[in-house]
Amino acid sequence: MAGAEVPDIVIGRLPIYLRALTLLAEAGQEFTSSQELGQILSIGSAQIRKDLSHFGEFGKQGTGYEVSYLRDQISRILHVDRDWSLALVGFGDLGQAIAHYGGFSSKGFHITAVFDADPEVVGQSFGDGAVRHVDTLKEVVSDMRIRMAIVAVPAAAAQDVTDMLIEADVKAILNYAPITLSVPSHVHVQYIDPVAHLQKMTYYLA
Amino acid sequence: MAGAEVPDIVIGRLPIYLRALTLLAEAGQEFTSSQELGQILSIGSAQIRKDLSHFGEFGKQGTGYEVSYLRDQISRILHVDRDWSLALVGFGDLGQAIAHYGGFSSKGFHITAVFDADPEVVGQSFGDGAVRHVDTLKEVVSDMRIRMAIVAVPAAAAQDVTDMLIEADVKAILNYAPITLSVPSHVHVQYIDPVAHLQKMTYYLA
Repeated sequence: MAGAEVPDIVIGRLPIYLRALTLLAEAGQEFTSSQELGQILSIGSAQIRKDLSHFGEFGKQGTGYEVSYLRDQISRILHVDRDWSLALVGFGDLGQAIAHYGGFSSKGFHITAVFDADPEVVGQSFGDGAVRHVDTLKEVVSDMRIRMAIVAVPAAAAQDVTDMLIEADVKAILNYAPITLSVPSHVHVQYIDPVAHLQKMTYYLA
Repeated sequence: MAGAEVPDIVIGRLPIYLRALTLLAEAGQEFTSSQELGQILSIGSAQIRKDLSHFGEFGKQGTGYEVSYLRDQISRILHVDRDWSLALVGFGDLGQAIAHYGGFSSKGFHITAVFDADPEVVGQSFGDGAVRHVDTLKEVVSDMRIRMAIVAVPAAAAQDVTDMLIEADVKAILNYAPITLSVPSHVHVQYIDPVAHLQKMTYYLA
């Protein structure tokens, strides 16, 4: 119930529920059910009801869940009912793609500072700003009170960059570099590794 | 043991082990242990030993695992000891970034056909080829015997594109569109959703 510590795996499913509810709301649907959400998401309806019960009573017998209400409640629980500033470290091919990708800012995640170590890259423009030298990372990120960062540097540089981010008081890192980062327990890390996803699937292909 | 069905979650960890072993091999290290791998990857050493035991006996009491041998064995198990052709559907910002990203082909995943629906985009060049119209997808993917695809189209188009890929006999899809795809049970889907990862972390930030 509300207040108790919620398992991390349940938290990980909330963004998926939020995504489905947002699509339903955009389609003008007023009510949904754990059965319908389960069908959309290929998750069991009992699992969905149990996950949501950690945070309170959102559904009504007979009518189910009110789509926009549940969407707003999950937004609030995840703290995505506000905007977040992000630092992006690395402005190579991948970093540029991330900086130009519209999917972050449309969900309230704004890349407000970009860093790179290459003197040829420093000064290039992105969105509203210019790429800064990574040597200024700690000062700039601290001053701007940025608490989230995206790491898009080569594997060999990722731990050093991560250490700098942690010194600047960053609490959450989305890591695209293909290594496991070493961080203190109060810092959250999530990994994006498309090659690992492909390699998992080839197991099943003859 | 070898031959029995291995849990999907174990298969999902093999690419992570492979990544660590590849890094160790590149650093010139000859032997490793489940303890060392566990430390690198923040996974328990007992878990690693148990996972690997599904596929045979790779370690020796006293000396541990031979790095390059274990790397080669996991490559073989995952079928990544060969090259794979991929179709990429969607050549917008995200699709272009994926096409230009060097991390796929360096691991043996080659984007050999690219499709888009926009007449202005069709004909643009990528790597060794030109973007084709999505109307030709089924024929081209069938003819080229491509079995894996990356979906990088807007959410609204993703299911239609997926249906076409399945008709063309694609068996594995890496989906960047922010929706859950409906596929028959013989088709494998993995999801890349960086926003969901960010939203999971903001839960833990005040």
